[in-house]
Amino acid sequence: MQRPLLLLTNDDGINAPGILALMDAVRPLGDVLVVAPDSARSAQSNALTVTIPLRARKLREEEGLTVYECNGTPTDCTKLGLMQLADRRPSLILSGINHGSNTSISVIYSGTMGAALEACVDDIPAMGISHFSYRPNADMTRAKHYASVFARQLLLHGLPRFTCLNVNIPDLPMEKGVKICRQAAGYWSEEFTKRQDTAGHNYYWLGGEFVNCEPDAQDTDVWAVRNGYVSVVPVQTDMTNYPFMQELQKWKMEE
Amino acid sequence: MQRPLLLLTNDDGINAPGILALMDAVRPLGDVLVVAPDSARSAQSNALTVTIPLRARKLREEEGLTVYECNGTPTDCTKLGLMQLADRRPSLILSGINHGSNTSISVIYSGTMGAALEACVDDIPAMGISHFSYRPNADMTRAKHYASVFARQLLLHGLPRFTCLNVNIPDLPMEKGVKICRQAAGYWSEEFTKRQDTAGHNYYWLGGEFVNCEPDAQDTDVWAVRNGYVSVVPVQTDMTNYPFMQELQKWKMEE
Repeated sequence: MQRPLLLLTNDDGINAPGILALMDAVRPLGDVLVVAPDSARSAQSNALTVTIPLRARKLREEEGLTVYECNGTPTDCTKLGLMQLADRRPSLILSGINHGSNTSISVIYSGTMGAALEACVDDIPAMGISHFSYRPNADMTRAKHYASVFARQLLLHGLPRFTCLNVNIPDLPMEKGVKICRQAAGYWSEEFTKRQDTAGHNYYWLGGEFVNCEPDAQDTDVWAVRNGYVSVVPVQTDMTNYPFMQELQKWKMEE
Repeated sequence: MQRPLLLLTNDDGINAPGILALMDAVRPLGDVLVVAPDSARSAQSNALTVTIPLRARKLREEEGLTVYECNGTPTDCTKLGLMQLADRRPSLILSGINHGSNTSISVIYSGTMGAALEACVDDIPAMGISHFSYRPNADMTRAKHYASVFARQLLLHGLPRFTCLNVNIPDLPMEKGVKICRQAAGYWSEEFTKRQDTAGHNYYWLGGEFVNCEPDAQDTDVWAVRNGYVSVVPVQTDMTNYPFMQELQKWKMEE
């Protein structure tokens, strides 16, 4: 019997420690195909490359593992891996392990989650997995453990189309297990740094700080991870605000 | 009394006819600040520019109208316009008029909607508005009419934080008015075109065709626009699949 095929990608690029950790964690579960960006593509959301052609370069091939780098976004990597590079339909698509969190509103900007969302649009069970540390040498032992746990559960249960998982691992010493959460309401309080180049023209660096709109809500991903839990949010692509449809009926739109 | 400030952006770039049409449509409603990408940024989703600095160049300044081009994504344009270029807080942020539709799953890839979503994260009433024709010389009369109608309703009613509107205008002769809808379940059936360059290396162009998973559902945006209605979907940034949280409780995640 053929082993399941697992397609892996990320947004930190093919050389990030996080994707190596993920490969390590899930190789025992099946054949692994890695298609990851050739360099960091953070905050690429669900962006697609439409103005230049995509290319993929095979970097490694051994028993049970094939690795490509791609010049596209994380979402491109999911698509190209699935449609062109895989020799059979993947059973699972995993994105990460991201260096840094993807809780709350970050889900809409995250390239890690962009790749996982694309997978669920294509009806393949998927998760994005992120670790709450930006340090390149962060200890990923716990993240690897849960990558494997969730991958096995995903192989077992599958997911409905248009839903994937967003898993975030705290960078804290305590071990409190997994908490099923909703996405916290929050935003990045944007602070651009404005500078002038040597010709006197302004330029701007995007910075900013995360603001949690509901710090006391214990059912949210932000609360969970800040309190030592592994958070898991089922994320869907339907963004309709259903209750607000009623409200809109009152507007005068036929003038 | 100061007139309201309207911040406009798009993803087709500063020279697209659609944003000129939008300027035209809403200038009577207030002062207009345009901050749009310096070239086309289609399918940029909520992508942010984090590896290079942003720049903005003032192209035009006259009574009630200031126009900048920016080297970033549509989401960058919203952020930079709001935080750095506007002289006061905008009352409204409008993105479009997009050349081509943004119904169904396109909401997760669309740069037009990325800019509008960013606005609602920043608690400013916003909409993305798209026209179902890719022809650069398409007749935008109807789209302009509804841009003005919705802009006035938005100024009047506002929107809850984290919700914006996704408005799509059909390119059909019939006039059936506005329909409040949910986002249709659908996907792009991806077909890459695989070619070889002159050195014999493969490259891939992204193509594909939209597949509507529920062609008979009359409460969806795709049905509405295909049947001559202007569709409006209230779109929210909370992507949690709430019902599925119960299902996840059954999984064994503590091994």
